[in-house]
Amino acid sequence: MNKFLIIPKEIVTSDSADNVYRKSAVEIVDQTITSIIALKDFDVRKYDGTVLEFPDFTLVPGFIQTHIHLCQTMFRGLADDLQLLDWLKKRIFPYENAHNKNSLKSSARLGLHELQISGTTTILDMGTVNHQEIIFDELINSGIRAIAGKCMMDINDLYSAFKESTEVSLATAYELAKEFHLKDDKIKYGFAPRFVLSCSEKLLRETSEMMRDFPGSMYHTHSSENQDEVAEVRRRTGKENIEYFESINILSDKTVLAHCVHLNNREISSLKSSNTRVAHCPSSNLKLGSGIANIPRYLREGISVSLGADGAPCNNNLSVFNEMRLAALIHKPIHGASVMDAKTVFRLATIEGAKALNLDKEIGSIEPGKKADIVLLNLNKADKCILDTDENIYSDIVYSSDKNSVREVWINGKHLVENGVSKKYDENSLIAEAKYELNQLLKRTEN
Amino acid sequence: MNKFLIIPKEIVTSDSADNVYRKSAVEIVDQTITSIIALKDFDVRKYDGTVLEFPDFTLVPGFIQTHIHLCQTMFRGLADDLQLLDWLKKRIFPYENAHNKNSLKSSARLGLHELQISGTTTILDMGTVNHQEIIFDELINSGIRAIAGKCMMDINDLYSAFKESTEVSLATAYELAKEFHLKDDKIKYGFAPRFVLSCSEKLLRETSEMMRDFPGSMYHTHSSENQDEVAEVRRRTGKENIEYFESINILSDKTVLAHCVHLNNREISSLKSSNTRVAHCPSSNLKLGSGIANIPRYLREGISVSLGADGAPCNNNLSVFNEMRLAALIHKPIHGASVMDAKTVFRLATIEGAKALNLDKEIGSIEPGKKADIVLLNLNKADKCILDTDENIYSDIVYSSDKNSVREVWINGKHLVENGVSKKYDENSLIAEAKYELNQLLKRTEN
Repeated sequence: MNKFLIIPKEIVTSDSADNVYRKSAVEIVDQTITSIIALKDFDVRKYDGTVLEFPDFTLVPGFIQTHIHLCQTMFRGLADDLQLLDWLKKRIFPYENAHNKNSLKSSARLGLHELQISGTTTILDMGTVNHQEIIFDELINSGIRAIAGKCMMDINDLYSAFKESTEVSLATAYELAKEFHLKDDKIKYGFAPRFVLSCSEKLLRETSEMMRDFPGSMYHTHSSENQDEVAEVRRRTGKENIEYFESINILSDKTVLAHCVHLNNREISSLKSSNTRVAHCPSSNLKLGSGIANIPRYLREGISVSLGADGAPCNNNLSVFNEMRLAALIHKPIHGASVMDAKTVFRLATIEGAKALNLDKEIGSIEPGKKADIVLLNLNKADKCILDTDENIYSDIVYSSDKNSVREVWINGKHLVENGVSKKYDENSLIAEAKYELNQLLKRTEN
Repeated sequence: MNKFLIIPKEIVTSDSADNVYRKSAVEIVDQTITSIIALKDFDVRKYDGTVLEFPDFTLVPGFIQTHIHLCQTMFRGLADDLQLLDWLKKRIFPYENAHNKNSLKSSARLGLHELQISGTTTILDMGTVNHQEIIFDELINSGIRAIAGKCMMDINDLYSAFKESTEVSLATAYELAKEFHLKDDKIKYGFAPRFVLSCSEKLLRETSEMMRDFPGSMYHTHSSENQDEVAEVRRRTGKENIEYFESINILSDKTVLAHCVHLNNREISSLKSSNTRVAHCPSSNLKLGSGIANIPRYLREGISVSLGADGAPCNNNLSVFNEMRLAALIHKPIHGASVMDAKTVFRLATIEGAKALNLDKEIGSIEPGKKADIVLLNLNKADKCILDTDENIYSDIVYSSDKNSVREVWINGKHLVENGVSKKYDENSLIAEAKYELNQLLKRTEN
């Protein structure tokens, strides 16, 4: 039995009352948070498990990102300063198409290392068209919690070599879901048709129907990211993007739509009434010149919003800290300086991410009965707030922290990052492996 | 004599050709870069000075920030989620007004520590109304290169206690300039009337006239940050902000205007024809809900643009890396994904900062004859670009780095940060000192 107490300076729970506990311990038994113990009347010396004391550090729920592309991690910096459709056509589609099993594994490992050491403990990942089993193997090996699936594309007007037939795409996704959905208690299948422009109606519709065989699975796609994309969707379908999704029964509380930058009022109503989830990716939306989603309105309407770093080439990071800071900052010039305060944004990256993935009974907050996905932060630095108030903890995390604030990470009770260093991956080996694999991959794209 | 060679993996010069040198060394003698030596035909073992080898790391010019308020550093997190005029009225003016010498010193030390360990080697700082000599003493003690001056305010409709008479303000500034301008070869005076709303025309005009007695001094103020501010300037002066400055002869190549978010075409022409400098502060402009300055246009017109973190309470950091990343990202949704590429932004934070301060003969690039203000970065990480191209170095620095990428810092040839740690300041002492001083200051504001 793995039984231990963590005694930090403070515990930021992200529970429904936003409780912050001091002079308290979190008890973990195996995979689970069993209790939060006030230390006033508790004799730590008599505790019959391990005791980990971090008197200067802050315990928070593991961060959750609801839109990631692990397969793109090694392409970081190879597609700067391009708008979405050029970015896909000139770089990302040719590169993804050139992945073999080894390069895909290397890319996933790079990404998982970066995510874990920066405190992300759960992801919704969109893979590429081929070799999705490699990503699942690496997700399981890494110890992360994930909902993932192969990218589905049966149309590709931007780079025609990179697609497959409708039948093959559906059959492969089904087989992968059979093999990997719930294969391990941290892994679920997320069906991932890429976006309207790369998917036939049949593919989008039958993918959705498949989910009945896999309770707990998700539907993960992109929507309304870029104005040229929106115009092309309108031209092809005669409808706005969300309206089209609605007409073919894609919208639901099991659907995560990345971006949702360009929506009209009717589309926003549809998201709300269908309880569809929005993954907000501020770095990506800025870097690809896509625009700024109306997140304050979505939140006001009660639409589920969570955060994602998207892929490394459109960010160029996978750290949730960049996304939190930007989510807090970029809406203020449009909606006023009081929107998207630090606590609101912190919740988007924790409990709201869990709700988006229908995992909020298991994760997203530090509460007894939840899985032990927890992160210890060092906010005890001269570049943080001087006063120790609850508000200042959120301010420190959202406005002034970065990946280097992360000290320890546990996922499902397992200690995966210790003193800022991965216990799973060796950084220099990852770099050497990726250098070799990327150079090989780029040679393949030249043929 | 202090004579040494630095042999990094690569030298990113920011010179006029954007040269990047590999297999090369930078030689420093005392305060100055004396040569860049190709190692091919050079026997390092026979060198008669110290040799510092960093085979995995990247040498860049020290970063330059042209709009900082050291006096506000300890107020970080005490003024979140407020727009500019509320932010000043409710928090910043009362807090600045409550500074005594000890709290001001503590705030400056906090800020200088943060700036130096994050690679900023030169600042243009706006102080507060009182005790500016304390800031100068700490600037000199810290070893940073700075142009600084007391904040001048003879009007204050937001918080009336915080101002002084026109005569006292002018006389105090003149005396400070006499004492501190060129007191040390790294220190100059920057006259700093706060903004139109806090300054009489006499104060603005006579401050400008004073500069004749102090060659090399600068004029540093805020302009056109917020729409309410702009409307109030219009109401009081009958003119747009820049038009008003022009009418009283404030615009020149010795003037740095922070922000310039809300300008009309005529104002932009005035900036251009007068060669006035713009300090772009993207974090601050977002956090206070001010808006997004039209930086791509200013650059297209040939207007001087450089970067600044502003004060800690409107950011909440002083790291130039946040400003570089935002400067690269926030303009893309408005102007297209190809604007503000990484190399352009890197130049704004180095040589363009030097030009803004009329210090480009001394600093801003790694070239023989320039002062040895240099920074060593660790980009050899798994969360950076995999390929080693010149473009990828800029991409790594601007899109994927943060303060923790900084390993070593030299200013004027003096080694001030070693392995990421300040050789000047002890972080825990800074925190303890600031906690005490801030609590005392907050008590003073209650009276």
